[in-house]
Amino acid sequence: MTYCVAIQLRDGLVLASDSRTNAGMDNVGAYPKMHLFAREGERQFVLLAAGNLGTTQAVVNQLRLDSDDDNLEVNLFKVKDLSQAASYVGEISVAVQRRHEQAKPNSNVNFEASFILGGQIAGSPPEIYLIYPQGNNISPSPYHPFLQIGEVKYGKPILDRIVRADMDLENAARCALVSLDSTMRSNLSVGPPIDILIYRRNVLDGGSHYRLHHDNPYLASLRTQWNKGLERLFKRLPRFEWDRYHPRKG
Amino acid sequence: MTYCVAIQLRDGLVLASDSRTNAGMDNVGAYPKMHLFAREGERQFVLLAAGNLGTTQAVVNQLRLDSDDDNLEVNLFKVKDLSQAASYVGEISVAVQRRHEQAKPNSNVNFEASFILGGQIAGSPPEIYLIYPQGNNISPSPYHPFLQIGEVKYGKPILDRIVRADMDLENAARCALVSLDSTMRSNLSVGPPIDILIYRRNVLDGGSHYRLHHDNPYLASLRTQWNKGLERLFKRLPRFEWDRYHPRKG
Repeated sequence: MTYCVAIQLRDGLVLASDSRTNAGMDNVGAYPKMHLFAREGERQFVLLAAGNLGTTQAVVNQLRLDSDDDNLEVNLFKVKDLSQAASYVGEISVAVQRRHEQAKPNSNVNFEASFILGGQIAGSPPEIYLIYPQGNNISPSPYHPFLQIGEVKYGKPILDRIVRADMDLENAARCALVSLDSTMRSNLSVGPPIDILIYRRNVLDGGSHYRLHHDNPYLASLRTQWNKGLERLFKRLPRFEWDRYHPRKG
Repeated sequence: MTYCVAIQLRDGLVLASDSRTNAGMDNVGAYPKMHLFAREGERQFVLLAAGNLGTTQAVVNQLRLDSDDDNLEVNLFKVKDLSQAASYVGEISVAVQRRHEQAKPNSNVNFEASFILGGQIAGSPPEIYLIYPQGNNISPSPYHPFLQIGEVKYGKPILDRIVRADMDLENAARCALVSLDSTMRSNLSVGPPIDILIYRRNVLDGGSHYRLHHDNPYLASLRTQWNKGLERLFKRLPRFEWDRYHPRKG
């Protein structure tokens, strides 16, 4: 499994991903799921990938090969905007899935993959897109300025409560880490290291990328303080009439 | 959709359920999903139901009809223990599903239903069981003393963090409400009123049952204080090196 989240803010973008892959509980690995494509001062893409590892690696490879080929009409360095880039990633993804499916029909393997593409092209605002296995894509709404792929449910409540389009990038990054931490706690198939990238609007500098391993002291202190804080907060919740039912415990 | 949760504690049981049903977004209703079967001083059952409403209602009706029939060899008032009661509920559920499926084969309707059965029979400890659509069942472990059915993921992180087998019933009830509130916030198809029942070990008194509507003042204050507390807690989280990247926001 995988969990990736991207947040589109007034001030820029935050993208985060876990690194655990598994082909069954007895075949667990760690692969980064965040892939960077950038030309400083000109354009900046971050691709997050979930789903069949053969598909996602083939898509990333194809994107890299295409990027180096100036003769192509479309590659990440030639697309006019993020929307066109998302459609292009979708086309490659569908082509890769179809190739793998047709190689051995009826093999009953799920070759599907989902992607989040975030970035900015000079002159346009930074954006994020979610690319479905069918190749189509969506962008977030201002009322719900984030996108998720993979194991999305455990980490969604905290995003629903905290994320607003006008919050600081740094706060959004912390919220993404809390969302990932909640997911790792509830689903063993989502695991560290965590990749997190903070991209400030119009800077076109590749952004600030961090890889946080399980024993990263900051991640550990965030996890501890969040957990202890939740316990404290929980203890201070208002009492209900059922506390009169057994007042000695009140 | 539905969300139900049950917690098995040293001191007794907590069971909670939402009330929203939907057969598509254009056909939403409110039905209680908590059903009580009790003989004071003797035995106490609480059944939580998720899945096809035709199936769950037919199962509950059958359980009630059987309970009134003293000639039957097995009904809720004749089973020896909770485990036998869970198997009996499973058998009825499978029989109902099969009847509905066979009435119109290939109708492509999902008649499946899941249940949580909690309760106590005098002389035995209080227990909870999750009954799968296939009729088999599981009980919780001491390390993970809760069971969920329906839309289980949004509300699981808070249970994972807070619920311990030796916590107070009242605290566990509050935690169940927070878990339901998180789920209602993230999934529109889970909604109030909330039924919550607190059953104290060996009391065999039917427990304390509350139905909390959306505008219940306690529920509203719990929701507000949890949300504000989370925001406060979030703001106090430790700062990371990325805050040096853009220190004026630190």
